[in-house]
Amino acid sequence: MKLWQKNIDSLKEVERFTVGKDREFDQLLAPFDVLGNMAHAKMLATVGLLTNDEAATLTAELQKIYAAIAHHPSLPASSLPAADTQFTIQDDVEDVHSQVEFLLTQALGDTGKKIHSARSRNDQVLVDVKLFLRAEIEQTVLAVQTFFELLIEQSEKFRSHLLPGYTHLQLAMPSSFGLWLGAYAESLADDTITLKSAYDIVNKNPLGSAAGYGSSFPINRTLTTQLLGFADLNYNVVYAQMGRGKAERIVAASLANVADTLARLSMDACLFLNQNFGFISFPQELTTGSSIMPHKKNPDVFELIRSHCNRIKALPNEIMMMTTNLPSGYHRDLQLLKEHLFPAFTTLRSCLEMAGLMLSNMEVKDNILQDEKYKYLFSVEEVNKLVLQGTPFRDAYKQIGLDIEAGNFGYTTEVHHTHEGSIGNLCNHKIIANMHEILASFGFEECRATLTKLLQD
Amino acid sequence: MKLWQKNIDSLKEVERFTVGKDREFDQLLAPFDVLGNMAHAKMLATVGLLTNDEAATLTAELQKIYAAIAHHPSLPASSLPAADTQFTIQDDVEDVHSQVEFLLTQALGDTGKKIHSARSRNDQVLVDVKLFLRAEIEQTVLAVQTFFELLIEQSEKFRSHLLPGYTHLQLAMPSSFGLWLGAYAESLADDTITLKSAYDIVNKNPLGSAAGYGSSFPINRTLTTQLLGFADLNYNVVYAQMGRGKAERIVAASLANVADTLARLSMDACLFLNQNFGFISFPQELTTGSSIMPHKKNPDVFELIRSHCNRIKALPNEIMMMTTNLPSGYHRDLQLLKEHLFPAFTTLRSCLEMAGLMLSNMEVKDNILQDEKYKYLFSVEEVNKLVLQGTPFRDAYKQIGLDIEAGNFGYTTEVHHTHEGSIGNLCNHKIIANMHEILASFGFEECRATLTKLLQD
Amino acid sequence: MKLWQKNIDSLKEVERFTVGKDREFDQLLAPFDVLGNMAHAKMLATVGLLTNDEAATLTAELQKIYAAIAHHPSLPASSLPAADTQFTIQDDVEDVHSQVEFLLTQALGDTGKKIHSARSRNDQVLVDVKLFLRAEIEQTVLAVQTFFELLIEQSEKFRSHLLPGYTHLQLAMPSSFGLWLGAYAESLADDTITLKSAYDIVNKNPLGSAAGYGSSFPINRTLTTQLLGFADLNYNVVYAQMGRGKAERIVAASLANVADTLARLSMDACLFLNQNFGFISFPQELTTGSSIMPHKKNPDVFELIRSHCNRIKALPNEIMMMTTNLPSGYHRDLQLLKEHLFPAFTTLRSCLEMAGLMLSNMEVKDNILQDEKYKYLFSVEEVNKLVLQGTPFRDAYKQIGLDIEAGNFGYTTEVHHTHEGSIGNLCNHKIIANMHEILASFGFEECRATLTKLLQD
Amino acid sequence: MKLWQKNIDSLKEVERFTVGKDREFDQLLAPFDVLGNMAHAKMLATVGLLTNDEAATLTAELQKIYAAIAHHPSLPASSLPAADTQFTIQDDVEDVHSQVEFLLTQALGDTGKKIHSARSRNDQVLVDVKLFLRAEIEQTVLAVQTFFELLIEQSEKFRSHLLPGYTHLQLAMPSSFGLWLGAYAESLADDTITLKSAYDIVNKNPLGSAAGYGSSFPINRTLTTQLLGFADLNYNVVYAQMGRGKAERIVAASLANVADTLARLSMDACLFLNQNFGFISFPQELTTGSSIMPHKKNPDVFELIRSHCNRIKALPNEIMMMTTNLPSGYHRDLQLLKEHLFPAFTTLRSCLEMAGLMLSNMEVKDNILQDEKYKYLFSVEEVNKLVLQGTPFRDAYKQIGLDIEAGNFGYTTEVHHTHEGSIGNLCNHKIIANMHEILASFGFEECRATLTKLLQD
Repeated sequence: MKLWQKNIDSLKEVERFTVGKDREFDQLLAPFDVLGNMAHAKMLATVGLLTNDEAATLTAELQKIYAAIAHHPSLPASSLPAADTQFTIQDDVEDVHSQVEFLLTQALGDTGKKIHSARSRNDQVLVDVKLFLRAEIEQTVLAVQTFFELLIEQSEKFRSHLLPGYTHLQLAMPSSFGLWLGAYAESLADDTITLKSAYDIVNKNPLGSAAGYGSSFPINRTLTTQLLGFADLNYNVVYAQMGRGKAERIVAASLANVADTLARLSMDACLFLNQNFGFISFPQELTTGSSIMPHKKNPDVFELIRSHCNRIKALPNEIMMMTTNLPSGYHRDLQLLKEHLFPAFTTLRSCLEMAGLMLSNMEVKDNILQDEKYKYLFSVEEVNKLVLQGTPFRDAYKQIGLDIEAGNFGYTTEVHHTHEGSIGNLCNHKIIANMHEILASFGFEECRATLTKLLQD
Repeated sequence: MKLWQKNIDSLKEVERFTVGKDREFDQLLAPFDVLGNMAHAKMLATVGLLTNDEAATLTAELQKIYAAIAHHPSLPASSLPAADTQFTIQDDVEDVHSQVEFLLTQALGDTGKKIHSARSRNDQVLVDVKLFLRAEIEQTVLAVQTFFELLIEQSEKFRSHLLPGYTHLQLAMPSSFGLWLGAYAESLADDTITLKSAYDIVNKNPLGSAAGYGSSFPINRTLTTQLLGFADLNYNVVYAQMGRGKAERIVAASLANVADTLARLSMDACLFLNQNFGFISFPQELTTGSSIMPHKKNPDVFELIRSHCNRIKALPNEIMMMTTNLPSGYHRDLQLLKEHLFPAFTTLRSCLEMAGLMLSNMEVKDNILQDEKYKYLFSVEEVNKLVLQGTPFRDAYKQIGLDIEAGNFGYTTEVHHTHEGSIGNLCNHKIIANMHEILASFGFEECRATLTKLLQD
Repeated sequence: MKLWQKNIDSLKEVERFTVGKDREFDQLLAPFDVLGNMAHAKMLATVGLLTNDEAATLTAELQKIYAAIAHHPSLPASSLPAADTQFTIQDDVEDVHSQVEFLLTQALGDTGKKIHSARSRNDQVLVDVKLFLRAEIEQTVLAVQTFFELLIEQSEKFRSHLLPGYTHLQLAMPSSFGLWLGAYAESLADDTITLKSAYDIVNKNPLGSAAGYGSSFPINRTLTTQLLGFADLNYNVVYAQMGRGKAERIVAASLANVADTLARLSMDACLFLNQNFGFISFPQELTTGSSIMPHKKNPDVFELIRSHCNRIKALPNEIMMMTTNLPSGYHRDLQLLKEHLFPAFTTLRSCLEMAGLMLSNMEVKDNILQDEKYKYLFSVEEVNKLVLQGTPFRDAYKQIGLDIEAGNFGYTTEVHHTHEGSIGNLCNHKIIANMHEILASFGFEECRATLTKLLQD
Repeated sequence: MKLWQKNIDSLKEVERFTVGKDREFDQLLAPFDVLGNMAHAKMLATVGLLTNDEAATLTAELQKIYAAIAHHPSLPASSLPAADTQFTIQDDVEDVHSQVEFLLTQALGDTGKKIHSARSRNDQVLVDVKLFLRAEIEQTVLAVQTFFELLIEQSEKFRSHLLPGYTHLQLAMPSSFGLWLGAYAESLADDTITLKSAYDIVNKNPLGSAAGYGSSFPINRTLTTQLLGFADLNYNVVYAQMGRGKAERIVAASLANVADTLARLSMDACLFLNQNFGFISFPQELTTGSSIMPHKKNPDVFELIRSHCNRIKALPNEIMMMTTNLPSGYHRDLQLLKEHLFPAFTTLRSCLEMAGLMLSNMEVKDNILQDEKYKYLFSVEEVNKLVLQGTPFRDAYKQIGLDIEAGNFGYTTEVHHTHEGSIGNLCNHKIIANMHEILASFGFEECRATLTKLLQD
């Protein structure tokens, strides 16, 4: 179809093109939009742009709308009974902001229209996105925490199961499943630091920046900040607008860190399950096989985790590409940032859950290092033993080398590693303590309490 | 040349290929390697792997080497007089670690050799890189701070200079240079939050993880952690090794955030300098021109800042591409991570300095908005005035619309924006306070004091 | 939900996770899968693995299935009447290959099962993807061609409309809309070269490579190559499998080239529509505005084209990230490559259509360069005139410079550029000729004729 | 140092910042700049902007300069004796174009100055870059060809050496070194198709487009096109300028394809060298080891190839990031494109050479598949044998499955794969024929002949 005549058909196409998938993604923003409306209404009343009665009516109506929206796990539940009809964005309504305003106006007439004073759709979508990102980071952190705890648990369970440690993918020294699993736990603790910095950047209030240049209304942005549980404001209104794309990029980068940890774990797992390694196995139901090739236990779950996670790792770059060299000020380009970022949260959490299911059912082969082919893993151990008995390092090194050459290399497969973070001293309690400290710093509880208050007042 | 016979020439090529640019980049690591050696030596003495005398001799020799290395601004200066000959990595020595050990052995014989107990080159390079990144982040943060202060200063200076605010690159509402400059200051404050999380991840001690699997030596990793001023350990030795590539990626992502702020500022500046806008100008010496086209004031400095910064924004993706799907454990691939990351620090700081030079010499056109072509910028102002005088919003909106249509649109170019973060209430003091809080959280001073103590003891 | 007990719920989750969106994307592959089946069946009969009767029955049944699948514009229509029920992949069927085989078996019993001899799902999906990519490239090339022709047409229409040419975003020399529009046409011609190389790589037959290691069946891969209209085989079966991910990446890179051309055009258009430039305008219906800000004509369509196209430009990197460092041989990771690549074709074609709608309705301002502010654009012209009249270049340059300084700069706004590709000699016919040569090289007609024959035989 | 006073020091810093590494990279462009000058001079004489004598003097002087520049292997050698002093860009000269013009003016006075008529530095750098890219693509293609031939040679040599074929990294079916090596050869043939499309885009003449808007001089761009051996012109002058960044991106994408092939080969090699696989080995001199761990044969060369190649794969994205959303027309940003792209050619060729050195010395383990652990690789073979003997597929499948379950699985390790591209029928001759056809299409010889003529006339 060549659309170049400016007729009804082509104009419909234009509408379809500009609306795009907005209705679908705006649905996710709905409960946050309602909360933003509530805070805005209350604030307008305190500065005289609404009467207290108007604000109260609006709040009551907004509570009804909130009750009609599917519950988000990071938000307080509605205190109203479940609504009969679910909230949806109608086909002839452009976005979630218009839909909510439409419902208010439908129910309350002129009072409904008044809520749009002193704001624009630009800061509405900004605050919705920030509230959404804040809630999704919370859910992600909780999923990371659950998986972290499993890793620690399995690390302790398999602390005595040795496996070869590789450098350059060549056999190097003894390692253990305790180490291997604990390493990924510690990795997640560091990843959570970056989730926290993303959270800090997201957890600032852009509401009131209007179209990105503020307004002459004497609004109280500090108040909406408090009501919505934000830690602070995006003060400068030009910066508040500039935060679009930037918040998304920084959040995506923090997801990418978790994704990288998971992807590497999956690569290791695929390798360890390979028959040439054969270190681990999984119940048949969790792998895909072939009745005719009984050796086949395809690690599809790990392969898909790896693939999803590697795609998430490409996301910060995608967001960057879409916003690079745009001058300051709003551009419609930003609308599309939602499409790959929003689903990434759910995908990453699925990956964490699936990895959890796999690891909690993982079986580890016993006595791997008893196999003769791994004997040279212990050569460094033998050198070190001599050193600790007083032989100078270079002499000890030479002696073991000659033993090996002469075929006289004797070794035991016991390892006595005692220093911090080694096979015999995993320091998982330290790693747990660090993780707990980071988790506590988010302040999810206070945030939820604030929103509960906003909903109930 | 076809190199496929395994002769002397081809083996030389292999050496050239594997060493690559390592000597060049390892030179940057030299002072940090010496500090790592000092901490390691002191620790070995406390666990009986060196005598106190040996440790003291090694320390004295390491101090001499430190004095022969070019000073890094984040490190304490040597208390020894400048050395006669500068430290360099000799052509037949593979890397900085070997060079330092070679110097120690040359000076101290067998005692020199003893320092390599209970470590491997893998954890040596890990600790060097972390100390280097920590120091470079510090220098970057200081450069950001300086530029931040200039932006605030200029924001205050030009607080009353209005310019058009654009959305969709279309004239929208009045903005100000106070807002524009303050926005970038606030952006840098948020960027610094991500520099802090990168710093936190970098500021953990990997030393003692040996080849990534620890050792049977009874070393005290907590002690080297304290001596080197690290905030904590990378506990798990497998994770310590996994930190290579990960630390680099997270640091690069934080640099990319600063770079993105600078690149957008540069894009704005190029646009504002364009003659169709004509909002700002620069002294002739800071632009490149053409004697025949007197209108030409090419903003080469901003174009190059933009280009350098956009390249830095591609760096996290590059690092990710180089490490994706590598199983855990050391791989030689990691060697090349230094080549684009290390120079990025210097480049970014040059860009901050150059942007500072430009902005501190920027001239802003007076009375931009007096031009009739900008009159409709004030239409929203006029609507809001009516609303504040009591006219319902929709009526006010209609009235001004009719005025415009009828050619009766009257307006003043004064703006009375008073809310937080608006033209009349920039809240720069709040932004400064936030920045200071972030800056204080790094603890640069304590870190330097610890290193000074290590050097002097 | 913590899924770590291996119960029915969690196994369902595993299934949901591994199937993912495969049913949705496999639906797109359906007609191609049927064609692949037809070729395979015919070939099996020639090598004795099916009887001729069996092959004929299978073919007849496959024709029915083909008739039940939504038509793809690059494929021949079915000669059968439209089916009563549309082809869909049932909820309990894993993918399109299983669905087609299921339908055959349902209709034909044992004969249906025989079609899976000498192939595996790995080479089935390979051939489906290649046929799909081939068809989608064709549709993309046709859309590029249509837009190319519009650009040429508009270039000719506006050949005498001058506008400023910028370098460094600074006024430099006269340009024209003829040049500006023609430039993007020529850009698309070069982009089509890369579409052709992607087409050449895609247009090779992987069928018969089985699971990536071939089989002991005496199949005739050359025959299926001819039947499916492929230009050649992926000979080596290990390479045929390696083509997964590689074909996708190379195709994505060619789409990215078209996307880059469109994105730059959109950036220019947004700038030219900006009121400070004001070079072009669009009918109100094609921009979004504001009744109160009559100056506002937001170029949302161009902004969304730019954003979609910049996202497509990130796609090759995403595919690369998902496949980097995977050893050779099939991995389940590859399944997810479809999800962002397949929709990119439709998106890019929408962008081409929308850009066409906009450009065909673009109005260009008359006499832009008559405005005094553009006078120095002509300074180089005046120098060159003197040179052509015999004055040495450096003297001419000096003289005009002095005229300008003294305020005596006289100029005419006529330009007499005559060389190839300049304002007065656009060479659009040459650009058209090049484009036609590239287009002819694809051989779409022969390909379609072959498929028509396959369907009818 | 705070540089914000506009004094001598800071202006020096500005110069340092804007010149950057240009002198270093422009040195690489030098011979191409001279050739561009020669063609331009000859053309100017034909249109009367130079006398024939002037053109001849300029040509003679340019030949001398050419003789003083280090030889590029894709260019004809100078017919003059080697110059006493090598060509360098002096410290006070900004770039290669100025240096060449300076030398001409120094030698010829006013005649030297005349050569700059009807061009600008913008089209000079455009033509230099295109000639350089063309020559570097040629060298890359030759290196690819050499490595391709080695792969084919080794594929034939090891055609009977079987190894396990993996899917999902799980043992699947028998493969062979003949297949494995041939697959990478065929991959390079496809990569070369994309090198050819990059070559076609590069091989067009931008000279005469001046600053991107042409000029009023009656130049003959077709003539310089012929003299420089370009296949065609970049006609539209605005497009000629737009080619900067675009040509680089497309060339980088084609290098990335070769890099991806090499990186995957390296990953496979590292895995096959790992002791759990143990399929291949290399002479001690080509791996790095440890005297104490005799099993250690670290594949550093392959790891560095993989790392370099993965970095090259990130290059197209980097270039895209640096040019995204720049409006049309020259920007100084483009200057930095040289810095990572130019060295990528040399790096990629080193990688090809090193991979060649490794593979030509690779030893392949005999009788790998005799090991019992690989027996189930043959289960599909056994099923297929029954099918070929007349047993229906599902029955055959069941029977072998029962044999396996009962521990009665009998098999032979012989494989009889005969179809195109399988173990017994590698079709390397077909792959070679395809490669030769692509190679022939470049027309390197004609191009070199044209340049030889230009140099000698």
